[in-house]
Amino acid sequence: VSLSSSAPAVLVVGAGLVGASIGCALRAASVPVYLRDAKLSHAVVAAELGAGSVAKPDPEELGLVVAAVPPRALPEVIGDALTSYPAATVTDVGSVKAGVLGALWDSGTDLSRYVGSHPMAGSQHSGPMTARADLFVDRTWAITPHRRSAAGSVAAVVSMATTCGARPVIMDVDDHDAAVARVSHLPHLMAVLMASHLTSVPSDDLLLAGQGLRDVTRVAGSDPELWEQILRANASAVLAELDSVRGRLTELVRALESPSDGDLHAHLAHAVEGTRRIPGKHGTPLVEYTEIVVEIPDAPGALGRLFALVGDAGVNVEDISIEHDQVRQVGYLALAVSPGQAPALREAISREGWTVQA
Amino acid sequence: VSLSSSAPAVLVVGAGLVGASIGCALRAASVPVYLRDAKLSHAVVAAELGAGSVAKPDPEELGLVVAAVPPRALPEVIGDALTSYPAATVTDVGSVKAGVLGALWDSGTDLSRYVGSHPMAGSQHSGPMTARADLFVDRTWAITPHRRSAAGSVAAVVSMATTCGARPVIMDVDDHDAAVARVSHLPHLMAVLMASHLTSVPSDDLLLAGQGLRDVTRVAGSDPELWEQILRANASAVLAELDSVRGRLTELVRALESPSDGDLHAHLAHAVEGTRRIPGKHGTPLVEYTEIVVEIPDAPGALGRLFALVGDAGVNVEDISIEHDQVRQVGYLALAVSPGQAPALREAISREGWTVQA
Repeated sequence: VSLSSSAPAVLVVGAGLVGASIGCALRAASVPVYLRDAKLSHAVVAAELGAGSVAKPDPEELGLVVAAVPPRALPEVIGDALTSYPAATVTDVGSVKAGVLGALWDSGTDLSRYVGSHPMAGSQHSGPMTARADLFVDRTWAITPHRRSAAGSVAAVVSMATTCGARPVIMDVDDHDAAVARVSHLPHLMAVLMASHLTSVPSDDLLLAGQGLRDVTRVAGSDPELWEQILRANASAVLAELDSVRGRLTELVRALESPSDGDLHAHLAHAVEGTRRIPGKHGTPLVEYTEIVVEIPDAPGALGRLFALVGDAGVNVEDISIEHDQVRQVGYLALAVSPGQAPALREAISREGWTVQA
Repeated sequence: VSLSSSAPAVLVVGAGLVGASIGCALRAASVPVYLRDAKLSHAVVAAELGAGSVAKPDPEELGLVVAAVPPRALPEVIGDALTSYPAATVTDVGSVKAGVLGALWDSGTDLSRYVGSHPMAGSQHSGPMTARADLFVDRTWAITPHRRSAAGSVAAVVSMATTCGARPVIMDVDDHDAAVARVSHLPHLMAVLMASHLTSVPSDDLLLAGQGLRDVTRVAGSDPELWEQILRANASAVLAELDSVRGRLTELVRALESPSDGDLHAHLAHAVEGTRRIPGKHGTPLVEYTEIVVEIPDAPGALGRLFALVGDAGVNVEDISIEHDQVRQVGYLALAVSPGQAPALREAISREGWTVQA
C-alpha cells in the first residue's frame, strides 16, 4: 500500500473502533496512516477496512501519533511515542484527561508535543469491525491542551479533528473531566443500574419491553473492561454526580409515597426541561422557533390543503402541536418554523383564507 | 365519509397518539372507525389524518369501544361506554390495569363486556399529529381479561390488536402491572432522574453530550401530566422497584469508592447481561447463533474476498468479532450466523482454502 502524499503521516496506536475510524476518516482525506495494535489481527482487520497500513512507518515521516488504547495503557503509549518520534505531535482519545496528564508530568517527560483530546463519538460496540469513516462527522471533539503544549501541536490536533469532520472545542483538562462525569459517565451508570436490575426481572415481564427500555439501557451493553477503567479514572467527579442523583432519588420516592403532593409532577416537568437542554443531534445548538398559529377548520381535507401550502412555500416545519380552546370548542395548529421563514409563511397562509392568530 | 363495511364499527374515545394510531390502523384494514375527543380539534385532526370519522355513530352498529383517554378518566369513560352501547365490547389502552378494574367493580357495573388491554407502543410525543397506522406492528399488546370477561369480548379485543399488526399476549391484571413497573415505569424514572439532573449542569458541559445521553433521557421528554397519572396508578409496584435500585446505587457508590474492589467490574458485567435479556426490536425472542471461526490471513484484500464469499452464499451475518491468539500472534474472525445456514457456509469457506476452526 503506497501512502505517498504531501500531508505528514499519522500513526494510530490501537485499532479499536475509535482508532480504526480515525484511520478510515484520515485515509478518506488522503492522509497517510499507519496502524499498530497489541493484537496484530485487529490492526490487520482495520487495514483491510481501509484504516491505513500495518507497515512500519519511517519515524521522520510522522507528524502525529494518536494513542487510541484503553485508558490504563495511555501514559506508557504516549510517553513511548514522545520518545520514539521526536518530531511528532502526540495526542490520545481517552475519555478522562487529568489522570493521564498527571502520570506524564510525574514521569518528567517533556510534554510540549503532547495535547490530549477526546472525540464525543463511539458506540456500544468495540473493535475495528464497526469502524466508520464518518463516525466523527458533526460530533464535538474536545481538545485539552496543558500549560506547556506547543501552539503547533495544538494546531495539529485541531486539524486532525477537523479532517475527521468533527467540531473541535478547546477545553481545560479539569473542566473536561467534570463535564464528562455529568453528560457521559453518569448517564452510563444510570443505564447500568437499570440494565443490571433487569437480570432479576422474570422473563415473561420482558415481553412487555418497548423502545423506551432499549434506549435507556443501550449504553450499558458496552465493554465492562473499558468502562471500569474510565470510571476509575474519573471516580471522584463521578461520585459527586452519583451523590446528587441519590438525593434526587430520595425526593422522588418521597413524592411517590405521598399521594397528594405536587412534587411528582414537578420532578417530571423538571426532567422535560432537562431533555430540552441537550443540543441537537449533531452538536448544533437548539434554535428558538417562531410559532404560527392557524385555526383548524371543521372541513374535510382542510389539513391536507394546509400542509400542501406549507410544502409549496418550501418551509421546513420543525414541530406541530394542537391547541384547543375549550370554551369556543375550536382548535388551532401551532406550526414551529425558523424565525426567518415565519413572516412569509404567515402571509401565504393568510392569503389563502386561513385564520392566523396575530 | 362513508364507513360501510361488513366489519362491526369501532368507536375510539380519545384521539391522542395511541387512539388516533389505532384509528389509522383499523381504517387501513377497512374497519369503520368513529372518533371522539373532549377536545373536538384533536378528533378533527385525527379524522383528517385518516383515523376515522367524527360523525356520531349508530349505537347498534358498534362492536367495540376503545377508551384511549388519560388514566384518570378511564373508569368513567369505560363505565359510560358499557351503559351507552349495550352490544359493544369495551376495552381501554391504559398503562396500568388494576386500579381501573377496581374502580369499575366498585361501581357495581356488569363488566362481562369489559376487557382491559395495553399496547406496548407510543412515543415521547402526544396528540394525534404523530399518529401512524403502523405504530403497533410487531409490538406486544397485553390483553388483561378479568374473571367475568366474556370469551367473545376477549376475542374481539384480541382481534383488534391483531388487525393493528400487534402480537396479543393474554396476561393477569396484577402480573401486568408488576411487569410494567419493571420494564417501563422504572426505566422512565431512571431517565427522569438523569434528565432532571441536567437542569443543574453548566451549558458548556452539554457541548460534550453524545448519543448515549440522548438515548438515556429520551423518554423523560414525555408528557408530565400523563406520566404523573401512570405512576400514581402503579405507585406501590414502582416504589418496590425504586427501592431495589436504591440498594444497587448504594452498592455501586461503594464499589467506586474503594479503588481495589472487583465489584465495579461485576456491576458493569451484570448490566451487559441485563441488556441481553431484552427481546429483539420487534418482540422476537433472542436466537442463539452458530459461530464460524476463520483464521485471518495477513494478505491484502483477503477480508474483502471473504465477505464477498459470504455474500454470494446468501448468508446473513448477525455479528462479527475478532479473536486473537496472543501467543501465535494470529487472529480469527468469528462470524455469527443462524444455525441452519452454518454448515453450508462453513463448507463454502473451507472449499475456498480458508482455515476454519473445527
